[in-house]
Amino acid sequence: MSRVMNFNAGPATLPIAALERARDELLDIEGSGMSILEHSHRGKTYDAVHTEALALVRELMAVPDTHDILFMQGGASQQFAVVPMNLLAEGQSADYVLTGSWSKKAFAEAKNVGKARAAANAEKDGKFLHIPGEDELELDSSARYVHITTNNTISGTQYAKLPDTGSVPIVADMSSDIMWRPLDLTNVGIAYAGAQKNIGPSGVALVIINKALIEEGRTDIPAIFRYKTHADKDSLYHTPPTFGIYLMRNVLDLVKKGGGLAAQEKKNREKAAVLYSAIDANPDFYRSSIAKDSRSMMNVVFNLPTPELEAEFVASAAKEGMVGLKGHRSVGGIRASIYNASQLAWVEALAQFMKTFAAGK
Amino acid sequence: MSRVMNFNAGPATLPIAALERARDELLDIEGSGMSILEHSHRGKTYDAVHTEALALVRELMAVPDTHDILFMQGGASQQFAVVPMNLLAEGQSADYVLTGSWSKKAFAEAKNVGKARAAANAEKDGKFLHIPGEDELELDSSARYVHITTNNTISGTQYAKLPDTGSVPIVADMSSDIMWRPLDLTNVGIAYAGAQKNIGPSGVALVIINKALIEEGRTDIPAIFRYKTHADKDSLYHTPPTFGIYLMRNVLDLVKKGGGLAAQEKKNREKAAVLYSAIDANPDFYRSSIAKDSRSMMNVVFNLPTPELEAEFVASAAKEGMVGLKGHRSVGGIRASIYNASQLAWVEALAQFMKTFAAGK
Repeated sequence: MSRVMNFNAGPATLPIAALERARDELLDIEGSGMSILEHSHRGKTYDAVHTEALALVRELMAVPDTHDILFMQGGASQQFAVVPMNLLAEGQSADYVLTGSWSKKAFAEAKNVGKARAAANAEKDGKFLHIPGEDELELDSSARYVHITTNNTISGTQYAKLPDTGSVPIVADMSSDIMWRPLDLTNVGIAYAGAQKNIGPSGVALVIINKALIEEGRTDIPAIFRYKTHADKDSLYHTPPTFGIYLMRNVLDLVKKGGGLAAQEKKNREKAAVLYSAIDANPDFYRSSIAKDSRSMMNVVFNLPTPELEAEFVASAAKEGMVGLKGHRSVGGIRASIYNASQLAWVEALAQFMKTFAAGK
Repeated sequence: MSRVMNFNAGPATLPIAALERARDELLDIEGSGMSILEHSHRGKTYDAVHTEALALVRELMAVPDTHDILFMQGGASQQFAVVPMNLLAEGQSADYVLTGSWSKKAFAEAKNVGKARAAANAEKDGKFLHIPGEDELELDSSARYVHITTNNTISGTQYAKLPDTGSVPIVADMSSDIMWRPLDLTNVGIAYAGAQKNIGPSGVALVIINKALIEEGRTDIPAIFRYKTHADKDSLYHTPPTFGIYLMRNVLDLVKKGGGLAAQEKKNREKAAVLYSAIDANPDFYRSSIAKDSRSMMNVVFNLPTPELEAEFVASAAKEGMVGLKGHRSVGGIRASIYNASQLAWVEALAQFMKTFAAGK
């Protein structure tokens, strides 16, 4: 078996030790005579996994006591609807900062539910090349919340720090950079993330939510969509995606053993620096259109002189065991996704390949 | 490694060959150098799995061309809300046949969305001991749909055949008996099921829906909850629970190789007959309160003379490698869940144990 260097944008590479653990106990976990997939979600074996996963999230992210941690289904796309369903009462409005395709989708879904307005729109000529500064935000001080997308997987931009939104709580889609580094959650009303980029497989959404927002949530929506329903039952109101939470537990256990989010940030910054250096070292051949202060540490997006050279680049890299480098179909170019589980050696190999490839042209 | 005889009610036992296949390729599927968990949902490897899973559902269940097949998230509990959100327009009402806790939950959620009424309620003194006959149904001929729960995991009852609802389409929660046997879906508007009992792991819901109902679905609800959104994108509108669908594919591939649903029905009827015979052979010790024509082929529920004997029964059976036999906390007693993947040898062992246990008292 030969594992590739996986630069997929998501679902993405997972730590090999998390997968090996899953493989080794896939038919029999802890001598129970069955797979974790076959355990009741109300039994002791699964309960220990569930509780440990919640505790790891709380410890790693230093989630304050003011906030609850929920595991939900439907990914971030479902949260696009569930957030306004819970929070937007009649007459209330939410602010959305538009920094890419995903924030536009979140905004569109909010308008299917209630009132929402764009507090800023970073789109120019169909492209999103920077994160709006605070001076560009036209915030409504009476907004119910301000929605942001902390990292934009398609365009390759990322907030260097959370914006100051005054007394209006931030709701952050952190699907593609959750746990990439330590973050103060005090002023974050809701942080949500599909697990499949930084912390686990698809099919689990992590939601960290201020308890006050849970209590203030609408009660005239279906029970399954109320945050309170899930908070009251420790995310066991209905059968959770048990294997997904189990695998997330495996991943987070390794993050903790690796030194937590401070160590994770150091590693992630090192990886990104290697690639951005390789781009900047050869500006005639590799082109990054992203504003430097908005560059993503998770998705390094760049162009070659022509689409033909980009296609050749992707094909040649694949022969060297580097896969998933094709940019998103909507923007083209090259995208190297370097989430938490990707390795420094991979980006070093990619940087070397970039040098050799450019020299040969 | 010693696998137990797993009588869990769900998540439930899975075919060992489906798990072994998952284990063997968990770090590298088909020489791709990565796990199915790490593949993009837009890539060739996952796409082949997704397409095969859809095709297996269509073939095994003989799904007519009039119906679409969807993979969704949130389990049956989410469908409790999503069905009325899509189908109930202003002024319309739906009929619910109440045959257990789950149909009551579905009914309550429908009332959170719109208008719903009980067409029958089988509850008597807090118990659900039979499936109402057609003469007991007070159907509203102008109802948008009639909702039934085909098998009731907690009380242990099951429809022997679908009721005649005239021109009103049936919406069936088939979570605990989907694919237990061949079924004519012509008059079924929607059949939905969480996968975690008969066909896979938790985190995937299978929805089979008449295309006319998709087209008639409300468009003023969030896009993520419209059946049309998922139908238009072959259940790839957003990132699906890829591993869950992969494992369902593994399971359904085995069902097909084992002779399809006709063979499955034969095996399931044999298993149930063994246990009901063991109960009926000793009516002084084992008591089934369920009407005989309503007995479930999936969840065999019975009582012993006292709760203390029931606790001893569960503990002694566990020592013999038979686990998951404790009845649901809301009704007590014993429950042997014998879904598709459970083995005839297990129920034979359990029947023998029942004989020995009773003889020793």
